[in-house]
Amino acid sequence: MLYTIKEWTIVDNSITTGDLLQTGNRLFTGNGYIGRRGVPDDSEPSLLPATIISGLYDGDKIREPVNVPDPLFINIVVEGTKLSLDSDSVLIHEQSLDFRYGKYMRSSAWAINDSIVNLQSERFVDRDYIHRMCARHTISSDQNVHITIKIGINGAVHDLNGPHLETFHTVLTETTLNLQCVTVEKQIVLGIACGITFSPHIPFTVEQSPTGIFKVYHYELPAHTAVQCTVYGAVFSVLDPGNPIVNANATVSQAFNAGWDSLFETHCEKWDSIWKTGDVIIEGDDEAQCCLRYSMYQLHCHAPRHSGDNAIPVHGLSGQMHKGAVCWDTELTVFPYFLATEPDMVAKFIRYRIRTLPSAKQKASEYGYQGAFYARESQETGIDACSDFSVVDVWTERPIRTYFRDKQIHINADIVYMIKKYIDWTGEWSILLEGAFEVILECTRFYLSYIYYSPRYKRFEILDVVGPDEYHERVHNNAFTNAMVLFVFNTVKDYADMLRWEEPDFAHSTVERLHFDEDLMFLKTVIPHLYQKMPNAQNIIEQFDGYFHLESCSIDNVRSRLKHPQEYWGAGVGVAVPTQIIKQADTVALLALFPHNYSFSTKKATLEFYEPRTEHNSNLSTTMNALICCDIGELDRAYCYFRENAEFDVKGEPKHRSGTHPAANGGAWMIAIQGFCGFSIEHKQIKITPRLPEAWEKVRFSVRLSEGIYDVTVTKEKYTVVKR
Amino acid sequence: MLYTIKEWTIVDNSITTGDLLQTGNRLFTGNGYIGRRGVPDDSEPSLLPATIISGLYDGDKIREPVNVPDPLFINIVVEGTKLSLDSDSVLIHEQSLDFRYGKYMRSSAWAINDSIVNLQSERFVDRDYIHRMCARHTISSDQNVHITIKIGINGAVHDLNGPHLETFHTVLTETTLNLQCVTVEKQIVLGIACGITFSPHIPFTVEQSPTGIFKVYHYELPAHTAVQCTVYGAVFSVLDPGNPIVNANATVSQAFNAGWDSLFETHCEKWDSIWKTGDVIIEGDDEAQCCLRYSMYQLHCHAPRHSGDNAIPVHGLSGQMHKGAVCWDTELTVFPYFLATEPDMVAKFIRYRIRTLPSAKQKASEYGYQGAFYARESQETGIDACSDFSVVDVWTERPIRTYFRDKQIHINADIVYMIKKYIDWTGEWSILLEGAFEVILECTRFYLSYIYYSPRYKRFEILDVVGPDEYHERVHNNAFTNAMVLFVFNTVKDYADMLRWEEPDFAHSTVERLHFDEDLMFLKTVIPHLYQKMPNAQNIIEQFDGYFHLESCSIDNVRSRLKHPQEYWGAGVGVAVPTQIIKQADTVALLALFPHNYSFSTKKATLEFYEPRTEHNSNLSTTMNALICCDIGELDRAYCYFRENAEFDVKGEPKHRSGTHPAANGGAWMIAIQGFCGFSIEHKQIKITPRLPEAWEKVRFSVRLSEGIYDVTVTKEKYTVVKR
Repeated sequence: MLYTIKEWTIVDNSITTGDLLQTGNRLFTGNGYIGRRGVPDDSEPSLLPATIISGLYDGDKIREPVNVPDPLFINIVVEGTKLSLDSDSVLIHEQSLDFRYGKYMRSSAWAINDSIVNLQSERFVDRDYIHRMCARHTISSDQNVHITIKIGINGAVHDLNGPHLETFHTVLTETTLNLQCVTVEKQIVLGIACGITFSPHIPFTVEQSPTGIFKVYHYELPAHTAVQCTVYGAVFSVLDPGNPIVNANATVSQAFNAGWDSLFETHCEKWDSIWKTGDVIIEGDDEAQCCLRYSMYQLHCHAPRHSGDNAIPVHGLSGQMHKGAVCWDTELTVFPYFLATEPDMVAKFIRYRIRTLPSAKQKASEYGYQGAFYARESQETGIDACSDFSVVDVWTERPIRTYFRDKQIHINADIVYMIKKYIDWTGEWSILLEGAFEVILECTRFYLSYIYYSPRYKRFEILDVVGPDEYHERVHNNAFTNAMVLFVFNTVKDYADMLRWEEPDFAHSTVERLHFDEDLMFLKTVIPHLYQKMPNAQNIIEQFDGYFHLESCSIDNVRSRLKHPQEYWGAGVGVAVPTQIIKQADTVALLALFPHNYSFSTKKATLEFYEPRTEHNSNLSTTMNALICCDIGELDRAYCYFRENAEFDVKGEPKHRSGTHPAANGGAWMIAIQGFCGFSIEHKQIKITPRLPEAWEKVRFSVRLSEGIYDVTVTKEKYTVVKR
Repeated sequence: MLYTIKEWTIVDNSITTGDLLQTGNRLFTGNGYIGRRGVPDDSEPSLLPATIISGLYDGDKIREPVNVPDPLFINIVVEGTKLSLDSDSVLIHEQSLDFRYGKYMRSSAWAINDSIVNLQSERFVDRDYIHRMCARHTISSDQNVHITIKIGINGAVHDLNGPHLETFHTVLTETTLNLQCVTVEKQIVLGIACGITFSPHIPFTVEQSPTGIFKVYHYELPAHTAVQCTVYGAVFSVLDPGNPIVNANATVSQAFNAGWDSLFETHCEKWDSIWKTGDVIIEGDDEAQCCLRYSMYQLHCHAPRHSGDNAIPVHGLSGQMHKGAVCWDTELTVFPYFLATEPDMVAKFIRYRIRTLPSAKQKASEYGYQGAFYARESQETGIDACSDFSVVDVWTERPIRTYFRDKQIHINADIVYMIKKYIDWTGEWSILLEGAFEVILECTRFYLSYIYYSPRYKRFEILDVVGPDEYHERVHNNAFTNAMVLFVFNTVKDYADMLRWEEPDFAHSTVERLHFDEDLMFLKTVIPHLYQKMPNAQNIIEQFDGYFHLESCSIDNVRSRLKHPQEYWGAGVGVAVPTQIIKQADTVALLALFPHNYSFSTKKATLEFYEPRTEHNSNLSTTMNALICCDIGELDRAYCYFRENAEFDVKGEPKHRSGTHPAANGGAWMIAIQGFCGFSIEHKQIKITPRLPEAWEKVRFSVRLSEGIYDVTVTKEKYTVVKR
């Protein structure tokens, strides 16, 4: 193993470039505004260093998160030799992460000439003040050596699809370095500042390049002494309040005044307060304990606590992968943890959907529909970054038409599902008045303009969609979609009724302003006649019209048909298309989202049917399957899914190297708490149905309800719920 | 040029195997029951010799027409050397076809040792008695030579996907050779007889093989003399009345008695009677004259005059290509010629659809619909030979899912269109009582079970179909399909009303038996609200929902994207799929089928839009485009299409070598008569709108109406219609 995880710490001994690439995710740190990949501050671009800012996107052909200029850049030369991981002179290289407090550390040693040179670094992305990052480096040697240290702001950053930065302007102030630049397409102004304390205090020269500004220190380091440099970085954009460069300078100045120890202490206090409600303690299974905590740590790195209306992208702030897009599975897999522990965070996510409603309405209109059609790959304004050609043919290198963008209509319903869950949990239906009711109305209106009536079957149907299983595009009456849409219709009706009673003026004016009266009338006709896929004689729900007629075969069999390792399994001619092999939980997800609507037999038969047909090419899939496994008592299988999710980012398979997986992180919590502890809220009451895995003796976790925080303890036999 | 066509004769000088392969179509002969490919009787299998029987199919994996044992087999050896076209000793080889009388001829000479050996052959597929074929061979030499001639029945035939024959049983009777065998899958008994007159009369030996029986003649041919052998062949199957082998023998015996000259004379008389009404005379354009006559000749070779209820397959009787399937474009391109000249023939085709209604109902039911869903590739019982995977991926060699079979619902309407045309033309609505009304009702019922109602647009829509343009599958509201379905709905309503008046008992009992009352009521609701694509502001009709949003580019541009010459343009990932490039006329076909429903501006704008976007990978396409070109006065363009159709089979592009193209043949007539002469029937009156091509001085043709035959003469300025 290249890494070990124990208690709150990951120690990583990767040294080859291939292995080091994985530490970017594994040792990731973030505070919800800044995400910084877990590589050394002196990394070459090949290690994909990146500093990503929540909600900051740019790009032309492919819009993606901006990798901002790095204010923690450092470059160390000893006796004319750069301290580099590529060099043969590396003796030791160890990186580690304290994920209780989000502190990244590295310790390296080189043999240079006759001397052993040590470098110790530590770094944190400040949780107390989100615009700040701090790093500290200590260099020592067993011989007298000449060292040159270059520290400052480096704007020549690596991009997946860049460059995104231009018009660099650098300034040396009395105490700081400044860099101002703008993004190429949207001309968003960025202000970066860097402040350095160098001990011992020695003179420096200033080096400026077209894209950066640095201080360069030359020092004759006496044997068995150390030099220490502390770097404070600050990042602002014009999207933040105030002048970016002024604020960046002030942030760094304030850091100088406070000093490292004080800053770190406050930072840790913030983490402690998060863990106070956010932690889960598993007794009897240390590995599960570590990985689950690590998963929750990841979620907190991405969660935009600072913002009123931002969401968590599908890869959080961990890089530029997948265009930094916010995807629907976040609603279903990431939000449950926050809903249970910090429901205010979910309100922010809901407000993100409220804020981006105009883009969703625009998208619906572009496709000729009414209402709102939320994006599959939503960016800062809610525009859909998803292409009509999401896949490239491996043989012809031509783009393949995919229908993810235009036919994946269940996304609206996933959003409504989370809104409903939020209101059920918190009772805070005032979010409806803030715009969530309008979101639900417009989502409903979209569906009403999408459905068709079948004169033959005397029912409404939902045709030509893509369900969660993207290997089968353009299907009719996808069980998941049809059920989710019915859920939306019932929800809007209930809320309309409730608001007419509770907030008659608001209800009346909203419905009138949106001309929704007729739609509400029509809804009453549709609801009893919207086609729902019922379990068949074998208690299995068919995924969509005609699915049972597809070829039944094993995943291995389908895999054996591949003629190229990178062939996509779906779209035009993918191997899975004519078969029953699916990408991820689809019907099983439905069972997991509405566990009370389906019998034990249906859950069991449907799971047993689809599970061997599911490739699980998604983290949603493992979670949904695990929840149903728990429901039907298949705990060993559920535990495998749990471990897979909980370890997904710490393991860091090479193919996922450029982004972490909040859906896996959140899914791990869901399996542990909703699955194994059988936790749910029913009629405003906490319900627990313990079904712990063999090794788990006790699970302790907390939930925050409107009345306060409850500490829950679950063992195999019993449980206690204590108001804090 | 390998061939010349002049007056009624094609002379072909092909000599290489590749060129000779094209003569199979070019010099094809047939009588509607038997089709015989235009290659010498002593051809090797590599030249694809075949004798195809109308309505006779077999096969396992791929059902296809049966290539029956050849009763005209001959093999000549001179001085130990086989007279073969492969040999270097060939001095002359010329084949020709008299397409006035369907006589195939060949003349070859070889240098063998020191002698020049000549072989003259002639052959006809008897139009007077459909089970008979006759061949005559004359061999001469300028030196004394020893010749061995083997003549008889050869059951070791070539198949595209065979073998289809087994259980061979051969008998030598006093005068004939007999072979009986059965088809492999359906065990259809075949009876073949061969009778030979050899002049001079000399003894023979009999040679039997597991699959054949032959007479072998050894003869010392004196210099400057000739030997002549006349071969009479007969083919019957158990699908014909009586005992196949008995009938075959009787047929050959009768031929012996009559003799070659008498048989050929009667044969020619039959052709003369066909041409009496069937000919078209073009003055001023000899090339057009020849090719058009040749096209009509081809149609008569395939037309099942003998049968009460057979149709013409898409490649007629010219081989096993395309599974011998009957396709919908026959209704639109082949039948108009027969409707004008021999409407009884169209009645046979309609009866074929009536007979195969049960298969169409079965197909509808298989797909979960009501009524009848006619086959895309209809075989003898109407079963659909079309596969769900009609294309093989050139890169992976995996079959590609295509939606030709399950989504090409316009086929029903094409059939109803021809029924309506037949009744309009002949007034013979009694065909409705024979079953055509039931066909129309069941086609209607299918559509009623296929359509959906859009609550948003308050209209009925037709979703998820494939129109004539097969490059764009699973489209919504295909203009052609929607209009054709509306036509069907109006037709069924009109006929139901008419029959209630004219044949109240029949009308009542049929509607009652088929439980169609409710459907007829529902029809009245649907008809005014069935969505029809209207011309846009530029007078262009959109081919289907969203077509205008596809990439607009040139055919050459799309072609340049191909990475493999055999790549299919449509289906999963074809180059045309994301573009506006279409396979064949789709919207333009609609304009051509209902020319009175669309304005000049719509025709012009729609043609100009689609024509450069049409690959014309079908013979339907050229015809439909040409008809609209004539309508809008673009005669030069129409003339190019005419020549392309009229010369299609005589030119015989290599890729089409295994089958002729009745749709091109019929289309040539349609362009000449409906297009250039502007011929139509309106309100039982012949209407002529002359718009002849530059070179055409006069066109003379005949049409057969219920009152009799009319001879029509059209010049650029005027026309005359004279009752014969």
